[in-house]
Amino acid sequence: MNIKEDIIQAHQRISPYIHRTPIFTSQIINEITGAKLFFKCENFQKMGAFKMRGATNAILQLNNEQQQKGVVTHSSGNFAQALALAAKNLDIPAYIVMPSNAPEVKKRAVQGYGGIITECEPTLEARETTAAQIQEEKGATFVHPFNDFNVILGNASAGKELLEDQPELDAIVVPVGGGGLISGVALSAIDYNCTIIGAEPFNVDDAYRSLKSGVIEHNLTTDTIADGLKTSLGDITFNIINTHVEKIIRVTEEEIIQAMQLIWERMKIIVEPSSAVTLAAILKSKQEFSTKKVGLILSGGNVDLKNLPF
Amino acid sequence: MNIKEDIIQAHQRISPYIHRTPIFTSQIINEITGAKLFFKCENFQKMGAFKMRGATNAILQLNNEQQQKGVVTHSSGNFAQALALAAKNLDIPAYIVMPSNAPEVKKRAVQGYGGIITECEPTLEARETTAAQIQEEKGATFVHPFNDFNVILGNASAGKELLEDQPELDAIVVPVGGGGLISGVALSAIDYNCTIIGAEPFNVDDAYRSLKSGVIEHNLTTDTIADGLKTSLGDITFNIINTHVEKIIRVTEEEIIQAMQLIWERMKIIVEPSSAVTLAAILKSKQEFSTKKVGLILSGGNVDLKNLPF
Repeated sequence: MNIKEDIIQAHQRISPYIHRTPIFTSQIINEITGAKLFFKCENFQKMGAFKMRGATNAILQLNNEQQQKGVVTHSSGNFAQALALAAKNLDIPAYIVMPSNAPEVKKRAVQGYGGIITECEPTLEARETTAAQIQEEKGATFVHPFNDFNVILGNASAGKELLEDQPELDAIVVPVGGGGLISGVALSAIDYNCTIIGAEPFNVDDAYRSLKSGVIEHNLTTDTIADGLKTSLGDITFNIINTHVEKIIRVTEEEIIQAMQLIWERMKIIVEPSSAVTLAAILKSKQEFSTKKVGLILSGGNVDLKNLPF
Repeated sequence: MNIKEDIIQAHQRISPYIHRTPIFTSQIINEITGAKLFFKCENFQKMGAFKMRGATNAILQLNNEQQQKGVVTHSSGNFAQALALAAKNLDIPAYIVMPSNAPEVKKRAVQGYGGIITECEPTLEARETTAAQIQEEKGATFVHPFNDFNVILGNASAGKELLEDQPELDAIVVPVGGGGLISGVALSAIDYNCTIIGAEPFNVDDAYRSLKSGVIEHNLTTDTIADGLKTSLGDITFNIINTHVEKIIRVTEEEIIQAMQLIWERMKIIVEPSSAVTLAAILKSKQEFSTKKVGLILSGGNVDLKNLPF
């Protein structure tokens, strides 16, 4: 297996269906942090998040017969929308299992992208059973939101683009939820002299604890504003992170909100709280990043404007 | 006088001090409107608004002695900040007359850019008298926020950049307050086969009425969310608009808010209400713009996140 070649091919494969997102800089945030920051704007990605990359690559790796039968996943977040849109682009069905208590706005978004929703009880068991039923009935292929090597290779294209444009980065800071994004970015950076650092809310610091203990840890609560980062790692993402990620910086809810507000006010772009953990981590560790060239992956921009934290 | 050459020179003069802002597109908003839209993102301009262009050009047209004595203006909006920052960049004093009831956040922003604030009673007369006093005492040069040919030539660079990147635009829609931006954009488009259309809130439709009556009209109320568009035209901007602007489309407050929300949610960028009048005008006149290539000037992104209309 040649990871570098796999990432190049995944990037070529998905590029007709994704944006090459811009990299933004901010003079004022550079002054505040003392670092030179490069924000990779996946909030401008199609459907508003990096998940579009992995979802598209996973579908494109299916053979014709598999594609015709469609794909299925369980998710109440950005991946549900991403898989629905990626499937729509290729004119195949996407079955999305969503918990019955998922917000209406999320359901409408999935439907807007042509996803076929099946509701289930809001437990992991019910989600998995329902998805398995659809696999059985429709012959659809299950696509995991992050613990899937093709999803990770698709996500890697975000890191590849960032490093092509800014090859001299000292570090890249990436949000950690299930670990699908940071795994991809870490693999994309293997040939570079660039440290990969995770950022995670204190309240859901399962990845931080997993790196310490050497086994996959879980969260007892999911009480964080960064709603994309509540998930625990999978075995594939844990192994990649364990090997390639230097460390994970934890931030408080207040630090996430402050960083998010700084990005909104100064950069005039809309990012979701899960993206703002990256800048929060840099603001928290100013000395470490001072004078360094640092990339930040702004993972998405899907927020409810009627429910903002400031 | 050769307007085209004047604009080229103004653009060269100010380019070390401004951003060449990106032009964004949105597949979904194209689908909604039926047009091909090109958003010129002056919300990403330095200090968050196009005003930086005109303020910088006006200061750079002063001679050394004038520059040393500084500049003065009266404004409670984006121009106060723009003149302060433009002056700071050139290391000269900027005296900003602000009404005593101006929001604290605006005062702090001007101070943050090094502006020297003098407060006065919140009447136009008090503002003009106070500014005249400073001119007298300090020998500072008064710079009008929009009714100044050098300010207009600086603003024209926004239209010049847009048309350089998209020379086949059928129309450009521009917000109209005092008319400094639309005047500049109209002059930049003289050699192009491109119609210039203004967009204005019904509640402050002085420019619409001025074009109808042939004289400068004023607003009886200033009750609009588009706080940058409350001003009436000046004699210079009125003459340019009268000659070069095809028409002005008026929109309701509700239409402004809906267009603003569409831009925030779908494009993931922060624009102020005064910018959203452009998209509101296109949504209102879908048939007219259908299948056309249309530029929109997103004039700025300075909003109070604690006081949003949705």
